[in-house]
Amino acid sequence: MLTKTDRKVAFMQEFAQRFDGITGSEIRKIFALLSDPDIISFAGGNPSPKSFPNLELAKISEKLIREEGAWVLQYGGTAGVAGLLDYLRNANAGIMQETDDIITLTGSSQGIEMFTRCLINEGDTMLVESPSFLGALQTFKLAQANVQTVDMEEDGVNLEVLERKLKALKPKFFYVIPTFQNPSGNTTSAEKRKGIYRLCKQYGVMILEDDPYAELRYEGSALPSIKSLDDCGLVCRLSSFSKTISPGLRVGYAIAHKDVIHKMNLLKQGMDVHTSNLSQAMVLEFLKAGGFEKHVESLCQLYRMHRDVMLESLKAFAPEGVTYTKPMGGLFIWVTLPVGMDADELFLKSVEKKVAFVPGRTFFACECRPNTLRLNFSMPNLNDIETGIEKLCGIIKESM
Amino acid sequence: MLTKTDRKVAFMQEFAQRFDGITGSEIRKIFALLSDPDIISFAGGNPSPKSFPNLELAKISEKLIREEGAWVLQYGGTAGVAGLLDYLRNANAGIMQETDDIITLTGSSQGIEMFTRCLINEGDTMLVESPSFLGALQTFKLAQANVQTVDMEEDGVNLEVLERKLKALKPKFFYVIPTFQNPSGNTTSAEKRKGIYRLCKQYGVMILEDDPYAELRYEGSALPSIKSLDDCGLVCRLSSFSKTISPGLRVGYAIAHKDVIHKMNLLKQGMDVHTSNLSQAMVLEFLKAGGFEKHVESLCQLYRMHRDVMLESLKAFAPEGVTYTKPMGGLFIWVTLPVGMDADELFLKSVEKKVAFVPGRTFFACECRPNTLRLNFSMPNLNDIETGIEKLCGIIKESM
Repeated sequence: MLTKTDRKVAFMQEFAQRFDGITGSEIRKIFALLSDPDIISFAGGNPSPKSFPNLELAKISEKLIREEGAWVLQYGGTAGVAGLLDYLRNANAGIMQETDDIITLTGSSQGIEMFTRCLINEGDTMLVESPSFLGALQTFKLAQANVQTVDMEEDGVNLEVLERKLKALKPKFFYVIPTFQNPSGNTTSAEKRKGIYRLCKQYGVMILEDDPYAELRYEGSALPSIKSLDDCGLVCRLSSFSKTISPGLRVGYAIAHKDVIHKMNLLKQGMDVHTSNLSQAMVLEFLKAGGFEKHVESLCQLYRMHRDVMLESLKAFAPEGVTYTKPMGGLFIWVTLPVGMDADELFLKSVEKKVAFVPGRTFFACECRPNTLRLNFSMPNLNDIETGIEKLCGIIKESM
Repeated sequence: MLTKTDRKVAFMQEFAQRFDGITGSEIRKIFALLSDPDIISFAGGNPSPKSFPNLELAKISEKLIREEGAWVLQYGGTAGVAGLLDYLRNANAGIMQETDDIITLTGSSQGIEMFTRCLINEGDTMLVESPSFLGALQTFKLAQANVQTVDMEEDGVNLEVLERKLKALKPKFFYVIPTFQNPSGNTTSAEKRKGIYRLCKQYGVMILEDDPYAELRYEGSALPSIKSLDDCGLVCRLSSFSKTISPGLRVGYAIAHKDVIHKMNLLKQGMDVHTSNLSQAMVLEFLKAGGFEKHVESLCQLYRMHRDVMLESLKAFAPEGVTYTKPMGGLFIWVTLPVGMDADELFLKSVEKKVAFVPGRTFFACECRPNTLRLNFSMPNLNDIETGIEKLCGIIKESM
């Protein structure tokens, strides 16, 4: 917790109270390490740089600016490029209700921020899965929300616990990452999706469904989005092209009741006026060119291999007492060390030996399980995955 | 003001209090008209589509994605692309203090939002020029600031009034657009810049210096930025490439004390993680190619002509009792009708006759002068400027 003095800046004014207790430094410290080329890093959440459709996007951007510069380089509407909105409306026809609307986002994280500020007054309670996405947790804290948690299980949150918390805490909304969750890799089952929707509706609690990994499925069948169950404008669904086309372009979108989208639009006017027209137009042209599904398929093939090598390496080298999730998609595996072990301490030792990951602590809003950690398998190459996991398991063994 | 019932959404939850009294609908109504191709619109604030360096940017983007896609399409740091930050640090060496830092923005409007949320708790007082940029006013209201005003004069705010308000209201910061102000077109003189800085320092009030039009000077000499006077980290300066290269790319930047930039960085992590790498890299390559100054010069030539035609048309057709500013740069002329006339009523009549502008009301945070309006001269072509102003002046005359 920052004291009032820490809040003070050089020049007599005080920063806003929203920053009390927020430093952001832990994660920055971790990511600073990624620049050391000798480190094998399982800490990131980046797509593989091999996965980008460079050549297609290079051609698309050149043509767009040359031929359509007059609007691509001009100011655009806050809701987004009309052609992209139409395309996405079509693509999401099965999900959208008549009362729903859509808005493009400068990355789907922006939707977390916008939805939160749509609903949260200082001190309002909201609910998250535990563990959950650390970027979202920071956003909720900066919005001065009272963040409460429901423990994740392998197939999503425990519905009895969820109901108890919905009833007792009367949260404004429940933030859920239903598919290949960051950081756990777990997927909420179809039954639990229905249960979550039913309970939230019963208690009048909105749902923020953050689903950026849904397309990255390496086995099993796609599950219905929670938004697809929504018959009363309860759910805001966030999707992203960061994991399927390119994160550097910053394009995502939100689908929600039109009243919610209207409020999000008002906030976005101040946040960035609109998402880069060029980025939006590039995504649209890439989608229209028809290669998107094939591209995602090849991504899935690539990442499936990465995941398999990481799981095999863990199977071969992880000492007894260490457990880990076996995600059917996404970018992350979640490791649980024996109780009593501390992933923060392990992190310091590992970094010395040039292996990095993210200690679990940062993913917990309330009670923390310090014996957990997150591994990313999309970014490192196959050799590094094998070498790095062997090394990491050796360090764990030494520390036991 | 929204009632509690209006705040209610279909599904039982209430929107956050920040939206009380904010509809955003006035301006949206106005901009909806811009899509009518028969309207001569002086309502926008867009650069001329003729002004974009399409061909250079098309080539730059193609090469960047093809050759550097591995990082351009990847996630980047929240502060911005390192090369662009270095370039901007150099270009602003005369302005930046040792304790200052820099961050790229998804358009400089983002900096208004970030700086505001850095300082403002619900109900905190801040000060703006009157009239001021309507986007900023909406941002301040959504941040639940208590927005107070100081009247603009031809050479900037009255310093005695400013001192009285600084003393009495103890605002957290003063938002100022020093050069070719939006909407008035007025420029704060060098003396008043010094005075503003001296007074704000004396009373411990920070300054948000929003300077997106500074490069668009059609006569006279450049004036020192308020930030260049800053010896104690009091000033946050916002700059933009929206008016000089392309607004559709959404690239601006902020310079401020490093503690402020650090907090802005924390907020930006949630707002969009980072500004599009491609947009940033394109701006950097365009700057490095060395044609920027020449490009801005040709922009100034173009807009000078537009401004001159508008001023000449006003001189020729404006009825007695109508006054207007004669800006030395920027995009806007501010018109004052005889007291008692209402620009909102005039707007409805004008739109019927296919001429649009923005009524002054939206630019006032407190006491409104309903007999004012804003004209943009960058977007319409020279013929339309002449025809439109003649028409508009005819309508004014009829309404007198």
